[in-house]
Amino acid sequence: MYVILVYDIGEKRVGKMLKLCRQYLNWIQNSVFEGAITEVKLKELQFKAREIMDIETDSLIVFKSRNEKWLEKEVVGNEKNDLDNFL
Amino acid sequence: MYVILVYDIGEKRVGKMLKLCRQYLNWIQNSVFEGAITEVKLKELQFKAREIMDIETDSLIVFKSRNEKWLEKEVVGNEKNDLDNFL
Repeated sequence: MYVILVYDIGEKRVGKMLKLCRQYLNWIQNSVFEGAITEVKLKELQFKAREIMDIETDSLIVFKSRNEKWLEKEVVGNEKNDLDNFL
Repeated sequence: MYVILVYDIGEKRVGKMLKLCRQYLNWIQNSVFEGAITEVKLKELQFKAREIMDIETDSLIVFKSRNEKWLEKEVVGNEKNDLDNFL
């Protein structure tokens, strides 16, 4: 499964959320991640994210696609390096 | 065609960018939009976005899917109302 994950999180919680998401996916923009992930790992990520989030104000959206080929990506401007994930 | 658009834009330019994107797509999170759009309209949106952006520091990513059914969306927390688009 291939996913795009975006969050909108209160400033105080952003650091934790970023750290969590980078354990599972590639960071491609400020609050945007993408990558291949299993259903089980995604559930784990969402569970941990819920523990960080304030459900009243924060939001986390995951777009799931069964096949990466079904999604084409176009970037204008400055894309974060995929290597981010390994640093 | 169905797209997800995300941007990371300097604070001074955010207002203009938000206004532009809302003319074409549904606003679903802070800097995230989705919706059906034609190839021509998307090119127009990207052209106008480039005029607003600072290409050195800002970024705009569009994920394109030929079919909305190929994307499944899961939201945790607070989703912006689709009606936003009509206000």
